[in-house]
Amino acid sequence: MKLLEERIRKEGLILSDTVLKVDSFLNHQVDTQLALEIGREFARIFADKPITKVLTIEASGIQFAMAAGIALNVPFVYAKKKKAVTLAEQVYSAPVHSFTRGETYQVSISQKYLGPGDQVLIVDDFLATGAALVGLVDIVREAGAELMGVGCVIEKSFQEGRSLLERRGVRVHSLARIASMAPGEVHFIEEDSADRLKENADVK
Amino acid sequence: MKLLEERIRKEGLILSDTVLKVDSFLNHQVDTQLALEIGREFARIFADKPITKVLTIEASGIQFAMAAGIALNVPFVYAKKKKAVTLAEQVYSAPVHSFTRGETYQVSISQKYLGPGDQVLIVDDFLATGAALVGLVDIVREAGAELMGVGCVIEKSFQEGRSLLERRGVRVHSLARIASMAPGEVHFIEEDSADRLKENADVK
Repeated sequence: MKLLEERIRKEGLILSDTVLKVDSFLNHQVDTQLALEIGREFARIFADKPITKVLTIEASGIQFAMAAGIALNVPFVYAKKKKAVTLAEQVYSAPVHSFTRGETYQVSISQKYLGPGDQVLIVDDFLATGAALVGLVDIVREAGAELMGVGCVIEKSFQEGRSLLERRGVRVHSLARIASMAPGEVHFIEEDSADRLKENADVK
Repeated sequence: MKLLEERIRKEGLILSDTVLKVDSFLNHQVDTQLALEIGREFARIFADKPITKVLTIEASGIQFAMAAGIALNVPFVYAKKKKAVTLAEQVYSAPVHSFTRGETYQVSISQKYLGPGDQVLIVDDFLATGAALVGLVDIVREAGAELMGVGCVIEKSFQEGRSLLERRGVRVHSLARIASMAPGEVHFIEEDSADRLKENADVK
């Protein structure tokens, strides 16, 4: 997604060869128009799939699940990172290790909001180690729901997340795929020619 | 907002005279169309204010800040509940005590995304004790930004949140104001006649 790559080049802060901050427009301050555009892009990419529900994880996936839900005209569910007092009923849950925070937390979804009959698109802001997304994929399957695919806004393609998901047979689409980065520079993996052809067709 | 009140009557789960669960449509599973409608309602209520930024707190405020941001065509910022590794720069922060979770956490906003010149609408899903919202109000003022008002989706009017905010001189609008509740029943405070007149005018 060229618009997104340009924005990352312009506003992304690369703190090291693994840490990219995009909190001026994606996950602290949020450009609502860009987020809507991202939702429309997910809807376009997965247009061949009869998605009935979008799933994400709090907090920074919510704006993109909302945008995808708007574009697809379906509800979304966000997994909670801690069992809250008011989430007392039966839940599906999976342990997720956060490398950023150096801790393992529990991801939970009420069994009322995920089950057989749901055709689920998972979305999130980042795909890096894949830990959180693998947890969500496992929950979707445990719930007996059908997984339509995973859509990520930014993928750190030099980390193992994509391969972990693909080994589980999951279709993964990321809107900006970073091949490598270092302070001051970022290199994207070019979108495949099928996608580019589709984009050209859209522009006409 | 009648649509919202009806939905609370139909789908809200009242677990006690203080605990209301609305996680089938507002803050776990989210009805995206209703969320958009809520955003438009906030935009309508604060139409007389030149809002440049919406502010909320992760996680369950995000979908409504996004919706308000869409309706107002401005970005939104969500305060983080914990200082993350990648949020290393200067932040504004305030301690917030959560009665639901029985713990005190720190709410932080990067100083880059809030400052003089910002005309801020704060939104959140619930107004109850007001702890989180008072923290946000204090941060907005510390940042030298101008506070246009606070918009909440559901207000537990039998708790002290509104009065805490109003004593700080803040204009508060809640879309559904609960006077009292008990398992199986919920009583709303009627919208004031000015609001009802406006709604009638909109319907014509």
